[in-house]
Amino acid sequence: MKFKTSKLVRFHQCDPAGIVFYPQYLVLCNETVEDWFAQAHGVDFFDLHAKLQRGVPMRHLEAEFLAPTVHGETLEFSLVVEKVGGTSIKIRIEAWHGEQLRFCAHQTLVWADVSGPRAVPIDAEWRERFTRYLETPNE
Amino acid sequence: MKFKTSKLVRFHQCDPAGIVFYPQYLVLCNETVEDWFAQAHGVDFFDLHAKLQRGVPMRHLEAEFLAPTVHGETLEFSLVVEKVGGTSIKIRIEAWHGEQLRFCAHQTLVWADVSGPRAVPIDAEWRERFTRYLETPNE
Amino acid sequence: MKFKTSKLVRFHQCDPAGIVFYPQYLVLCNETVEDWFAQAHGVDFFDLHAKLQRGVPMRHLEAEFLAPTVHGETLEFSLVVEKVGGTSIKIRIEAWHGEQLRFCAHQTLVWADVSGPRAVPIDAEWRERFTRYLETPNE
Amino acid sequence: MKFKTSKLVRFHQCDPAGIVFYPQYLVLCNETVEDWFAQAHGVDFFDLHAKLQRGVPMRHLEAEFLAPTVHGETLEFSLVVEKVGGTSIKIRIEAWHGEQLRFCAHQTLVWADVSGPRAVPIDAEWRERFTRYLETPNE
Repeated sequence: MKFKTSKLVRFHQCDPAGIVFYPQYLVLCNETVEDWFAQAHGVDFFDLHAKLQRGVPMRHLEAEFLAPTVHGETLEFSLVVEKVGGTSIKIRIEAWHGEQLRFCAHQTLVWADVSGPRAVPIDAEWRERFTRYLETPNE
Repeated sequence: MKFKTSKLVRFHQCDPAGIVFYPQYLVLCNETVEDWFAQAHGVDFFDLHAKLQRGVPMRHLEAEFLAPTVHGETLEFSLVVEKVGGTSIKIRIEAWHGEQLRFCAHQTLVWADVSGPRAVPIDAEWRERFTRYLETPNE
Repeated sequence: MKFKTSKLVRFHQCDPAGIVFYPQYLVLCNETVEDWFAQAHGVDFFDLHAKLQRGVPMRHLEAEFLAPTVHGETLEFSLVVEKVGGTSIKIRIEAWHGEQLRFCAHQTLVWADVSGPRAVPIDAEWRERFTRYLETPNE
Repeated sequence: MKFKTSKLVRFHQCDPAGIVFYPQYLVLCNETVEDWFAQAHGVDFFDLHAKLQRGVPMRHLEAEFLAPTVHGETLEFSLVVEKVGGTSIKIRIEAWHGEQLRFCAHQTLVWADVSGPRAVPIDAEWRERFTRYLETPNE
């Protein structure tokens, strides 16, 4: 299953060259992960951190910036899980403008106890939730 | 040769978990590249864009986030060139806190005509400049 | 008439104290002005700048920060025009969480030719548009 | 006495109009306050929050944006105290480029117990510290 969310690119996310300042794509990726937790799993980032004492810090990131985006354009972000590990997950996030892939990232997020912070095993409930978004052959 | 620049991590670069919000490492990488152009090559980003009509948009990024950083800490950023290509360069940026490597990134920057924007060949003058920062075996 | 738009407060807009980092309220104000132009006037910021050669730089700002906001909360932003001047407008932006006013700002935006940039007279068409959002006694 | 600190304006602090995106002036003000605590009072923001359990949230802000700034320019920020109240201080921050005043702000910062957060009385030690930076007639 694929999670999808739309993002309108803002004036303040663009630089003097008139296009998205590249770290802002990662800010939008973080919003996509927030949306995934809140909308797909019913747990927003505030509760995840404050109540469940869990966070998902970035461990490894690989990203391709394929075509520039200007403010006023809407990007369709998608998220799939590539692997559910013991204490981390690998996800792929893409940003499309119509038929054009603008940005693609592979990210390894650690399942962390925020009081550490330190990596902790993903429990059965979350493992089941993450597994639901594992990429399927036709996606 | 290695280019080095210090960055004091700011309150506003950290998130509710109390540590650097990961896209802010990329913002600091961008500042490091700005510092490299201004201090090592004598051409700041304003002149690079406005006078020379050149920019260095990100094409590919791979980054590892190895240990968390809190505000008030100073990170020592270093930059070396891994490869000078026809229309792009590959660089490696590291951020150290004392003896601890906190962050490491490999980045492919396109040499772009900002009026396009489109990739253009790196001319002899800039090729020579970038080559000076090619990694040497002992670094 | 009052323009209204909702903003979900994000993880990355909050600081290590766990609440919205105050300049982020101004970023959200800028998004509110963007939304007003796009949704109420049918001209988004990209077209405003690139086609009409107009921008609305900030000249004067007064803001009160009345209660803290945490990420995951939704703020209802409202915008009314307090005055339409010769080359500028005065607006008031409020951010409410339920019945609680969290933030209130009075802003003077210049009507600027972006090629200058310099202030230019507000033409009849835009004067009419802005006037429609003048605060009325019952608001 | 006046506290002074220099800030090099960065590419990422500017918007598609090529000038500083106005909320970034407030981010630079926050850095100026951080520098004031660390350099003038010997207590950085990390220790202020984590050890002393104190913070300085913004309560009221008035700012004038007098002339645009482009990236690559250095602004000289100055900070003076206008008033030391019971549970807050009023400060004035200016940003100059050579002889030109680009930005001026009056800010009311609350002296807060971050565990609340709630305003608390400024103790004698900090009162003395803040009073040292009270504006004098010749400034």
